[in-house]
Amino acid sequence: MRTIDWESNTIRIIDQTALPGKLRILTLDTVEALVDAIRRLAVRGAPALGAAGALGVALAAVRYDGDEERIRAAAAAVRDARPTAVNLAWGVDRALGAVQKGADAVVAEALAVLDEDAAINRRIGRRGADLVSELGLHEVSALTHCNTGALACVEWGTALGILRQLQVEGRLRRVIATETRPLLQGARLTAWELEEMGVEHHLIVDSAAAWVLTEHLADIVVVGADRVAANGDVANKIGTLSIAIAAAHAGVPFIVAAPESTIDWTTPEGASIPIEYRDDDEVTKWQGVPSAPAGTRALNPAFDVTPGELIAAIVTEDRVIRPAETVPTVYEL
Amino acid sequence: MRTIDWESNTIRIIDQTALPGKLRILTLDTVEALVDAIRRLAVRGAPALGAAGALGVALAAVRYDGDEERIRAAAAAVRDARPTAVNLAWGVDRALGAVQKGADAVVAEALAVLDEDAAINRRIGRRGADLVSELGLHEVSALTHCNTGALACVEWGTALGILRQLQVEGRLRRVIATETRPLLQGARLTAWELEEMGVEHHLIVDSAAAWVLTEHLADIVVVGADRVAANGDVANKIGTLSIAIAAAHAGVPFIVAAPESTIDWTTPEGASIPIEYRDDDEVTKWQGVPSAPAGTRALNPAFDVTPGELIAAIVTEDRVIRPAETVPTVYEL
Repeated sequence: MRTIDWESNTIRIIDQTALPGKLRILTLDTVEALVDAIRRLAVRGAPALGAAGALGVALAAVRYDGDEERIRAAAAAVRDARPTAVNLAWGVDRALGAVQKGADAVVAEALAVLDEDAAINRRIGRRGADLVSELGLHEVSALTHCNTGALACVEWGTALGILRQLQVEGRLRRVIATETRPLLQGARLTAWELEEMGVEHHLIVDSAAAWVLTEHLADIVVVGADRVAANGDVANKIGTLSIAIAAAHAGVPFIVAAPESTIDWTTPEGASIPIEYRDDDEVTKWQGVPSAPAGTRALNPAFDVTPGELIAAIVTEDRVIRPAETVPTVYEL
Repeated sequence: MRTIDWESNTIRIIDQTALPGKLRILTLDTVEALVDAIRRLAVRGAPALGAAGALGVALAAVRYDGDEERIRAAAAAVRDARPTAVNLAWGVDRALGAVQKGADAVVAEALAVLDEDAAINRRIGRRGADLVSELGLHEVSALTHCNTGALACVEWGTALGILRQLQVEGRLRRVIATETRPLLQGARLTAWELEEMGVEHHLIVDSAAAWVLTEHLADIVVVGADRVAANGDVANKIGTLSIAIAAAHAGVPFIVAAPESTIDWTTPEGASIPIEYRDDDEVTKWQGVPSAPAGTRALNPAFDVTPGELIAAIVTEDRVIRPAETVPTVYEL
């Protein structure tokens, strides 16, 4: 099934906060419910957020048929649910482009976003697997961070889509997945997808990634992107930078998988990407149980920015961008 | 109070697995109880383990008075409770050196270990604070990993002891502490000590350390050591290597605080230090609640090895060793 879909004029999503314990399907029939689902990460992952943005406008178009002002206000609310997520805004704007043609046209445009995303991911996967060959690697062990699989997209996945393609080609030996604190997308979602895929996989605490890389237990790193700046800097889940620095240190190729829609040409460089800070509780508690003394303050950036010089390749559906080759760097990649 | 002490021929320890929720004191009156406490990390931290090793032999000497064979067997059991911890073996051997003089002499030797540790930590603290001055830094924000405070020692602390000394001198602006997955010593123990100290502190997920460093939110990194090899390589809590690589990348001085007893001259380099692997459950569960699908396998190294070339200084009670200056490195420290 698709992670996010449109059915009987409602949005249906897998509630990612319930995994891996439960496979719970949510039916969202108001823009408010969608905004809430986006905020509490029931739907997450850059491409899935693109779909959510487009479907949110479709929902508004159906509910507020003809009232362009209300549709635009709803679209703005959806866009603002996650300010760092450029795909969300992109999906909103894409569907909004059809608003003057009526609700049916908006819905059709939103559904096209979903179909295209599925096709895009297959292309990223094939291009990524070809890149791994170009790097001189046949069968690989891979390290990945956060969740970039079917759950993060409409289906298949971006970085995990490359691993799916390698598996199809019989070239995926093993995956090492970070748990991805604070919200544990790696432990909850990626481990669940890898189990479904039937590939050998091991979970690590995030801080063990550098050790995995220096011990050469992984031949490549593949991660997704929340936003790619025009110069090749990549904003992605907190911890991505840490892995990229360690990969450069260990000489392991660091590969970013992202649809073209993730590239924000209006953002010249990573430093201009606003970092989203989330609640202290995500760090100081675990499912409501405190891990730190009461009142402990946290610093909880949801994202970090990895400079292009640490990135061997950004794989999109259309091309392979090699930021590390276009900027000065002290690292050999 | 001291974290570990000797009272009425028993060993008394703060049960570190109960913090920060409860301050529970355990009274250990058998070698088996001590071995169990060491294994489940109720007592942990390299210097505290040195004290535990010495007191374990004292306990055996009192219980098996005169029976050198049983005392030596008990000493071996204590030594084997944590194979990577060189201080544990050191403490055991130190007390065992007095075994032929009788139980009272063994107890006196063990208590001398505790007193010396307290004194050593004060000297590390003062030397570390002086080093920070030498680096041209007056008031600092510091990043630290795991717990190296009073709870890890007999009192005061090693890396956290340097921060205590800086605080005494009015030079500690803020501490950023990693939560330190999987066992959360940073969240549970360090945050508790920092709160007791009354210093501004923020908890971060481990993977955010690289971002904190590249954003220059910390002027120095201070960590402890489980074992220092003869060439300056340092085995310490998993994640230390990750922070050291990021600190080198960001140009932030990476300082290790460790008593001389942590230096193992019989270990020529980090590569010969055996890495302890712990249970998958530490990664895949949280206080018994699964964070990953049932059956998920983990890779759970308790330690990693940081090469000396990434270490600006190792501060002991007697001197400052500068491994980064004695080996070739691409980094400017």
